Amino acid sequence: MTEHRSINLSDKLSLFRDLWSPRVIAELNDYQVKLAKLQGEFVWHQHEHTDELFICLKGVLRIELPDSAVELHAGELFVVPRGVEHRPVANEECHVMLIEPKGVINTGDTQSGLSAPNDQWI
Amino acid sequence: MTEHRSINLSDKLSLFRDLWSPRVIAELNDYQVKLAKLQGEFVWHQHEHTDELFICLKGVLRIELPDSAVELHAGELFVVPRGVEHRPVANEECHVMLIEPKGVINTGDTQSGLSAPNDQWI
Repeated sequence: MTEHRSINLSDKLSLFRDLWSPRVIAELNDYQVKLAKLQGEFVWHQHEHTDELFICLKGVLRIELPDSAVELHAGELFVVPRGVEHRPVANEECHVMLIEPKGVINTGDTQSGLSAPNDQWI
Repeated sequence: MTEHRSINLSDKLSLFRDLWSPRVIAELNDYQVKLAKLQGEFVWHQHEHTDELFICLKGVLRIELPDSAVELHAGELFVVPRGVEHRPVANEECHVMLIEPKGVINTGDTQSGLSAPNDQWI
């Protein structure tokens, strides 16, 4: 018998502190649910083959896009369309849930010191 | 230029009142993000070909499984594995976010008066 347990977002968030380094908390078919803590300016990048779902859990996340920007407060979400350059920016620490296919790199097509190891479960 | 806007979960939830009738608020590739209001006992069913992600936003959702049950409070999530019979139950009204591939019927393989129209955007 498989043991089934709920996953508590606050509990998972309490287990790491580093910024810009998504942690995987669940899988849904070939998609992963990740949590990340963000502060400052990320790098401009895109994901050529996939959309990317951001759900803001705490704080304010601004997602800069080529011609505009979307500001996410807690309880708000946004899907960055595939192939669209974007840059997440948070003036103060914010916490987000990300959902995207397994294997997506946080910096997309951009090599950066902020490129995080993939598939880090917590 | 495409206009990009955030999606506010509370705003979307304020736009409908009916129970067990998921509303689509966003798409992520071929997946849909849905909101639903639940109260009472749903029907036992399964989704043969896909996992199903439940995120509890308000209230308490109990997901009954063949050998156990998982209780979700606000800020908690659970992925029902494909092919596993389950029955959502909520003693009081609860609000959930669901993520699953486009085309999934809420009652899965079970025909029921609770089978909701698919692809209802809000």
